[in-house]
Formats: sequence, C-alpha cells, structure tokens
Amino acid sequence: MMHSAIHTARVREDDRYPSRHASRASVTPRQDPVVHGEAGDGPLTPSQLLFFQDNGYLSFDALLDPDAIRACQQELQRLRDDDRVHQADEAVIEPGSRALRSIFAVHRSSDVLRRLCQHPKLVAIARQLLGGEVYIHQSRINYKGGFRGQAFYWHSDFETWHVEDGIPAMRLVSCSISLTANTPHNGPLMLIPGSHQRYVACVGATPDNHYRESLRRQEVGVPDDASLARLVEDFGIAAPTGLAGHVTFFECNVMHGSNSNITPLPRSNVFVVYNSVDNRPEAPFCGLAPRPNFIAEREDFTPVPFPADSFGSTP
Amino acid sequence: MMHSAIHTARVREDDRYPSRHASRASVTPRQDPVVHGEAGDGPLTPSQLLFFQDNGYLSFDALLDPDAIRACQQELQRLRDDDRVHQADEAVIEPGSRALRSIFAVHRSSDVLRRLCQHPKLVAIARQLLGGEVYIHQSRINYKGGFRGQAFYWHSDFETWHVEDGIPAMRLVSCSISLTANTPHNGPLMLIPGSHQRYVACVGATPDNHYRESLRRQEVGVPDDASLARLVEDFGIAAPTGLAGHVTFFECNVMHGSNSNITPLPRSNVFVVYNSVDNRPEAPFCGLAPRPNFIAEREDFTPVPFPADSFGSTP
Repeated sequence: MMHSAIHTARVREDDRYPSRHASRASVTPRQDPVVHGEAGDGPLTPSQLLFFQDNGYLSFDALLDPDAIRACQQELQRLRDDDRVHQADEAVIEPGSRALRSIFAVHRSSDVLRRLCQHPKLVAIARQLLGGEVYIHQSRINYKGGFRGQAFYWHSDFETWHVEDGIPAMRLVSCSISLTANTPHNGPLMLIPGSHQRYVACVGATPDNHYRESLRRQEVGVPDDASLARLVEDFGIAAPTGLAGHVTFFECNVMHGSNSNITPLPRSNVFVVYNSVDNRPEAPFCGLAPRPNFIAEREDFTPVPFPADSFGSTP
Repeated sequence: MMHSAIHTARVREDDRYPSRHASRASVTPRQDPVVHGEAGDGPLTPSQLLFFQDNGYLSFDALLDPDAIRACQQELQRLRDDDRVHQADEAVIEPGSRALRSIFAVHRSSDVLRRLCQHPKLVAIARQLLGGEVYIHQSRINYKGGFRGQAFYWHSDFETWHVEDGIPAMRLVSCSISLTANTPHNGPLMLIPGSHQRYVACVGATPDNHYRESLRRQEVGVPDDASLARLVEDFGIAAPTGLAGHVTFFECNVMHGSNSNITPLPRSNVFVVYNSVDNRPEAPFCGLAPRPNFIAEREDFTPVPFPADSFGSTP
C-alpha cells in the first residue's frame, strides 16, 4: 500500500528534486549553491570554502577544546547508564540487546550536548556555509560498539530530508564531532567527494517489479548500483580519520556511508544538522505524514544564538 | 547433538592446541616456531624473515609478473561465466543469486591457477618459511562483489584446520594473490600483527549456556571479545593494501578478518595454503568426520615441484 502510494503520487510542481517516483534511477545536476555565504562572513578561509565547494566536506583535527570533548564523552556514558533514557521515544536501542545505539534531539534533552551543538565555533562555520542564521534540524549522539558494528549503506541525507521531511532546498550542513578515534579500520565515515553536485533520484518500489529479487533486496531511498559506480569512478572515496575531537562538516547532498566494524574499537559521535532559517520544511514531498519532530524539526525554527562579537560580525 | 559431542569429547593426549572444549576462552603461548627455515634457504632476507617472525605476515607489491596476474584475471572471468563450474561441489554460490563467490581446489581444476599456486617465487618463500618441502593443503579463487560484500569475522585459520581437519602443528602458511586493487575502503584483509604468537582457544557451545543470548550470537570457532580486545590493544591492526598483483603471505595462526565492502569495487584473489610435508593431517581433533578433500587435502601429499636451480639450492 505504502509503495503504491509512493508510486502513484504525482510529482509536485514545486519539487525540484523528485525521487522515488520513477522505475528508473536518474542523476541530475544540483540546482542550489554549495556555499551560500562569503569569505568574510565567518572563520573559513577562501581555500577552505573552495575545498568544501569542490568536495562537499571539510575536516578539522583540533577545532574544539579537549575539555568540551571530554564532557561529551562523560555525558554519553551517563546517558548509556540511565534506564529512563533507554525508554524514551528518542532512543534507538540495539536490536537483540538493551544497548543504546542513538539518542535523537540531544540538543533539547542534555545541557552538555546542547552547549556542543550551539558551540560558537561550529555555528560560525554553519552560518558561513549556509549564508545566515541557522536552526537545528536534527541532533543525535551515536554509540556504535566494536566487534559487530553494522555497515551503513550509501545515501544522500538530503534525499531523505527532502522526500520524507519536506525540506525544499540543499541548504543544510551536517557536523559530526567524534568522541572516539576514527581509524581506517573501524568503519569510518566514507564520502564521495564531489557527489554533492549531482542528485541521484532513487527508484520507487513499483508493482511491476515488486517480486523481483533485485528489488526485494533494495530498500526505498537507496541509490542504484550504476549511479554509485559512476560517482566513485568520477570522484573516488575519502574517509577522514582522526582522534577523538575530530570534526567533519559535510554537505547535505554528499553521498556517504560506512562499512561494518569488526575491530574492538567502538565509535561514537555527536551529529548535528544545521538548516538555514530560510529553508524550513514544507509538507513531505512523498505525500505521506511527516516523521516525528525529534528526527526532523518542524515546529521550532529559533535561530541558534550567536554572540554578536563572534566571527562574521566584521568582515 | 553436535554441540554436546564437541563438549563432552575428551582432549586428546596429543592435542597441543585444544579448542572448543571449555566453557571459557583461554589464551596460551604458541608452541611451534614461526619461521622453520633459515636465511640461506630461500629468497627472503634476514630482515624479511624477522618481520614475518614478529608480525606473522609479509607483503609484496611486485613479486609476480603482470602477465601471470592478467592470466588469472581472465581465468576468473572464464570460470564465472561457465555454468558447469557453478554446479561443482567445489563452487560456493552467493546466497540469493547465481553469482560465483569461491571455487575450491583450483590447483586441481585449472591449469592457469595451478601454475600460479606452483609458481617458483611463491613456493620458494613457502619452503623457506616452512623449512623444507611443501604441499597444497587448500587453494581457492574468491570473488567478492562490491556494494554488498559481507564482513568476515576475526579468526585464526589454524584453529579451524587443527580442530576440524586434524593438522597437528603450526607449520602452514597462506598466500593471497590479489587480482583486484585492495584499498583501505573495500574491506581489505586486516591482520593483528603478532597475534600468531598466542593461541586463542574458542568457547564450545555447552549445554549450560546454550540458550543464552551471548552464545546464540556467537558461533563455534569464533574468538571471544575479551581476547580480541587484548590482542588489538597489544598489537594493533595492519591492513596491507595494494594494486592487483599484490601478494601477502600470512602465518596460519595470525588473527585476521575483514570488514564489509559497500564500495562499488569488487575484490578477488587467489588463495593458496602451503603445508609442510612433515605436518600431515591426522584425525580431526574435534572427534568429528573430516571436511571434504577439496577444502582440506588429506590424500595427496606430493610436494609441489620445485626446480633444482631455484632459490635455496645454494646458500
């Protein structure tokens, strides 16, 4: 039922990035700027802005104070030990065990993590990249244990946020703050640098091929093999690694994913998505009900407070 | 039934490496030499022998002629296209599709791959490491597609070969010849260098804890989390990467595994295990029937032919 609804829904006139409508994948050019601000608007240098423009991500080894990272590590431990947290809607519990995997909307529930999400150094970069005031579309803290950490398949966040949450334009940026070391071996974030310049529309599960093996394994919202192969052929793969405290900003449409983690080294991070206040969600483009507010903010668009004397107030 | 049989079987008097008998994992020191030959016995230099002694592996970027690699790549393609090959006992077919994943005993079925397994440069190294004549315990060609390549969990080959095939001593060496590039991203072989110096006895599935969650997920022959964490803490992880033609020798007891591969880049290799002619299999130490001959040779111990004028005949 859900699949046919998706299939038969007409593409809305205001949908510049239709996906999950057609029975064939398509790749079209991006229609929004990548960098929405200017060199003088914030802390990023012209070469950093160009790097982000070209690659769709930007990494920092020592952007934040080690004390801020330590506080978040302690907060993660506290949350993992708190039974009430496990029972909240915002919590994602590991299937088959009681272990906490993610908590959403931590900028609302935790003072420590709100301070991190609102950290002037992070917000200054988000404001510069998005060209003005930003609010938090989503935040979460992730804990992925070692030994049996699962892979996360390739996807563009924007594809989901557009189709399921109704975000109209590519004017969001994600920020991942590592609370553990990322090595080449423990399933680090992999990005296809440059892929943010193309929009890969995903195949909807149409009645015609519902029963075919290839589609039984392919979930909705997953890019097709041929488009992915072409992206990697054209652009390659990058996997920023670093110690705890490593920060990666990545553009909302950059294709990314991660392999499994059989090493004993767990991976945890805080993940926060900044959206431009001029890019508020509309009704989801798939025609279905929107996802819960703790996954995709659609009520409170208050700009993240930003000290007047911070970056960007003077050229 | 099988589990209780394993559990109740007494440890044989001649079993220097018991595993899958106890309800607790144990780590004991290796009881066999790592390098069985001498510096003058083959092409490996004293420093290469020391590296292997310390790390349990040794990699080469350009050991073999590119033509030999090309021939194997073509042979792999031919085998993948041949329907008769798919139906052989020796073939492992991808679950859910007809794609060929591995073919065992290729040194018997393919002239091209036998030539590779008997290549004097490989055999000279195996003879030097194992101290004398060698035969082929196992060979196979692997093809692991991109996008959905599965992880392969940590294991010591020797643990399995000892328990299930009856190999008495640590005097085998594996050789992996890459037919595609191994990058840090496409799920390359990971090794714990130094782990070959310890023997991790695995937990048997005992009736006491048959139903406990931890053991339902843990398969027989899998090292426990605490032992793995300790090994990685003490030794770290190495993942040799390289272009097609890259060769890695690794010791039979070195702990190794690989993460999943979501990249579009497939991985294929030829894998050959050399055993010393003085280390023939006995009855399996688990008390069960042995595995098929194409997985673990137990009939033909003919030494791999080695030209008299090759490495090792003169100091």
